[in-house]
Amino acid sequence: MSAVTADGGGFGLDHLPYGVLTTADDGERRVGVRYGDRVLDLASAFPDGGWRAPSLNGFLARGRAAWDSVRAEVRVLLAGGGGEEHLLPLEAVTLHLPFEPRDYVDFYASEQHASNVGRIFRPDAEPLLPNWKHLPVGYHGRAGTVVVSGTGIVRPSGQRKNPSDPAPVFGPTGRLDLEAELGFVVGVGTALGERVPAEAFADHVFGVVGLNDWSARDVQGWEYVPLGPFLGKSFATTVSAWVTPLAALEAAWTDLPGQDPTPLPYLAPGRTRGLAIDVEVEIDGHVVSRPPYASMYWSPAQMLAHLTVNGASLTPGDLFASGTISGRERDQLGSLLELTWGWREPVRVGDGERIALEDGDEVVLRYSAPGTGGGRITLGEVAGRVLPARP
Amino acid sequence: MSAVTADGGGFGLDHLPYGVLTTADDGERRVGVRYGDRVLDLASAFPDGGWRAPSLNGFLARGRAAWDSVRAEVRVLLAGGGGEEHLLPLEAVTLHLPFEPRDYVDFYASEQHASNVGRIFRPDAEPLLPNWKHLPVGYHGRAGTVVVSGTGIVRPSGQRKNPSDPAPVFGPTGRLDLEAELGFVVGVGTALGERVPAEAFADHVFGVVGLNDWSARDVQGWEYVPLGPFLGKSFATTVSAWVTPLAALEAAWTDLPGQDPTPLPYLAPGRTRGLAIDVEVEIDGHVVSRPPYASMYWSPAQMLAHLTVNGASLTPGDLFASGTISGRERDQLGSLLELTWGWREPVRVGDGERIALEDGDEVVLRYSAPGTGGGRITLGEVAGRVLPARP
Repeated sequence: MSAVTADGGGFGLDHLPYGVLTTADDGERRVGVRYGDRVLDLASAFPDGGWRAPSLNGFLARGRAAWDSVRAEVRVLLAGGGGEEHLLPLEAVTLHLPFEPRDYVDFYASEQHASNVGRIFRPDAEPLLPNWKHLPVGYHGRAGTVVVSGTGIVRPSGQRKNPSDPAPVFGPTGRLDLEAELGFVVGVGTALGERVPAEAFADHVFGVVGLNDWSARDVQGWEYVPLGPFLGKSFATTVSAWVTPLAALEAAWTDLPGQDPTPLPYLAPGRTRGLAIDVEVEIDGHVVSRPPYASMYWSPAQMLAHLTVNGASLTPGDLFASGTISGRERDQLGSLLELTWGWREPVRVGDGERIALEDGDEVVLRYSAPGTGGGRITLGEVAGRVLPARP
Repeated sequence: MSAVTADGGGFGLDHLPYGVLTTADDGERRVGVRYGDRVLDLASAFPDGGWRAPSLNGFLARGRAAWDSVRAEVRVLLAGGGGEEHLLPLEAVTLHLPFEPRDYVDFYASEQHASNVGRIFRPDAEPLLPNWKHLPVGYHGRAGTVVVSGTGIVRPSGQRKNPSDPAPVFGPTGRLDLEAELGFVVGVGTALGERVPAEAFADHVFGVVGLNDWSARDVQGWEYVPLGPFLGKSFATTVSAWVTPLAALEAAWTDLPGQDPTPLPYLAPGRTRGLAIDVEVEIDGHVVSRPPYASMYWSPAQMLAHLTVNGASLTPGDLFASGTISGRERDQLGSLLELTWGWREPVRVGDGERIALEDGDEVVLRYSAPGTGGGRITLGEVAGRVLPARP
C-alpha cells in the first residue's frame, strides 16, 4: 500500500481526475479516479453508480450538479481513509481513451504561435492574418483518430511538394512535428440552433486534458489551401488518460494578456480569463520547451462561444483544443516548426539534436497547475512514441 | 394497401434503401426498408435480427456478406408478396437520421465547381489551385450537426467583413447557400495505421445518401484563411432519410471524364469510375439546376484512398461527401454562389428570383440513377426549409 503524500504527487484530494480502466482479471471498461499512484475503481466502490461504461460520456452528460456530487462523495470516501479495497495500483490497470470524442475542433488561439507561423511562412508580410484578432480561428479535426496517451504513432505517409519540385511525391513524412495544446471536454450538450454564451462555459465544459496534435508539416503545407489542414493532422491526436475536472482548477484561473481591438460583444470582451497551466515538452526524457498556457490570446470561454454562435449543437464528449501553446520566449515554443524556426536551427535534445521527430522518439507533454489546496496539481501526461512508417 | 408499380416510383425491388423510423404507437427507433410508398419494419418482420436500434451503425459494421444476405432476404420476402403485415404506409412513420455519423469529411471533387469558385473569387489568377489536380482536396466538417431531411434550418448568425468594411460585423448571414452533393456512408471500419486502397472501396462503403452542405458564404469568406471553413458550414448538413446500398447502384457505375496529369499510384489512376446519378435542385418547387454526378473529376474510391493513406482509421458511420456537384452547363451548377455568378445575376425561381436563400425557402435535392432492373431508382430526397435567425 503506497502512502499518498501531502499533494499526492500532484494527484491528491484537490485533484481527482477521471479515467477509464480495465484490469487483467476484469476486461470490462469502467470509470476510475486517480488518487496518488493508485486508482479508485468507481464501479467497485459505488456498484450502483453506472460506472461500468465504455467511456465517461454518460457521466459527462449528467451535468454540473452530478459532477459536483460525485466529486464530493469520492473526496469524503478518500479523505476518511476509506475505499482501500477499491484502490488499484496504477501499474495494475490499463488506461483507455477516457471519453468518446464526438466532434473535435482545434483552435489557433496563441498569438505567439500564429505570429511565429506567419513570420516563418510569410516573412515579408504582416505575421497575423486580418481575421486573427477578431475571432478565434479554428477548424474541425478528426475525432475518430483521437487516441489515449501511450498509443504508438505510426509515421504517416502522404503527398507533398516543395515549391522547387516539378511534381508532388509520395512517401513517409519528413517533417513530423508535435503540438503542445490543452483540450477541453464538453459535458452537457445543446440543441441545434442554441448558443453557449461565454458566461455558461462551466455549465457545459466538464474538464481539461493534455493534447498533442501530431502534424506532418510537409503533407499539411501542400494540401491545406484552400480548405485547411486535413491528412497532415488526421492520422493521430493524443490526449491524456486523465480528465481533470474544472472543479480542480478553480485556483488556476488567471487574467489573460488582454485583447486589442476589442472583440465583438458575443465574444464577451473585457476581462478574459485563462488558466495558469504550465506545460513541459519532453523528447526522449529531455525538456525542450516550457509553454505557458496563461499566455494565450483567446480564452476557453471565447472559443466555446464562437464555436456555437452559429447555432452548431454540442454533444457530450465533444472536444475542443487551444491550438499550439507558445509563449514569448524561445524556450516556450510549443512545436518543432517554431523551435527550429522553420527547420533551420536544430533543437538540442540531450546529447543530440532534432529538426523534426525521428522514428523511436518518445514525446511526453507534462502539465501542472495551482491546486485548490495551495500546492500544485499534475495533469495527466500525454505520451507517444514515433513508430516507423508502414511499407 | 397501395400497389407497387413496376419500378415502385423509384423504390421498387431493385432499390430497397434503409432508414430508421418510429411510429405514433411505437416510439422506439428501428430499421426499415423503403418499398414503393411503404416501409418494411424490419424489427417486426425479423424480430430476432437486432433491428431495434437507434441507427444503422450496428448493421453497417457487419460488413458486405451481412449486407448482401439481408438484402436478399428482404427481396425474397417482398417479391413473394409477403410481409404485408409489416409494411407501414410512409405517412405513418417518422424518419430519423439513419446513421450516426462519426467523422464527416467533405471533398471538393468537381472540377467545374472548383474552377467556378476560383474564377469568381480570383478572376485574374489560374482558376484551379496548384494542388487540385494532384489530390482530392477535402476537410473535416461537423459530424454532430448532420441532420435528416426535413429538419428546419435556422439561419445562422456570425461574423463577417466585406473588404471595404473597416471592421467585422455580427448578424444573421445574408448569403445563405445550398450545396448539392452526394454522401458516402462507411460501413466497415479500419484500425489506426491501415489504408483502404481504391480496390477495397466496396468492402468498406455501404451506400450513398443525398446531401446538402448548407453554407453561410459571408461567414465563410471572412473566417476561412488559413484553416478552412468552420462556422460558415458547421450549423447544419442535411442528408436523405434513406441510405441507398451500393448493391442497388450496380448499373449506375460509369467512366469519369478522365484525369490529367496522372495522379500518384496510391490514387489508382487509369479508368476512374463514378456514378451516373442525376441531381435536381429545387427551390420552392421550382427546379433551378440539374447537376450530373457523372461529371466529377475525383472518384469515390479515390476520395476514400486519399482519406486513409496517412493511416487515419475509419469508424462505422463515417460520412464523406463529394463537395458541390457542378456540371459544365449554366443549368448544371450545384450552388447559388455559382448560379448567381458571385451574387451578381439573380436566379429565376418561379415568378420570383433569388440571390441567396430567403427565410421560408424550401430547398429539395432529388437524385435518380439507373437501377439494376432496367428502369431508374429514386434516391431519398434531401429537404430543408430556411427558418428565421434567432434573436
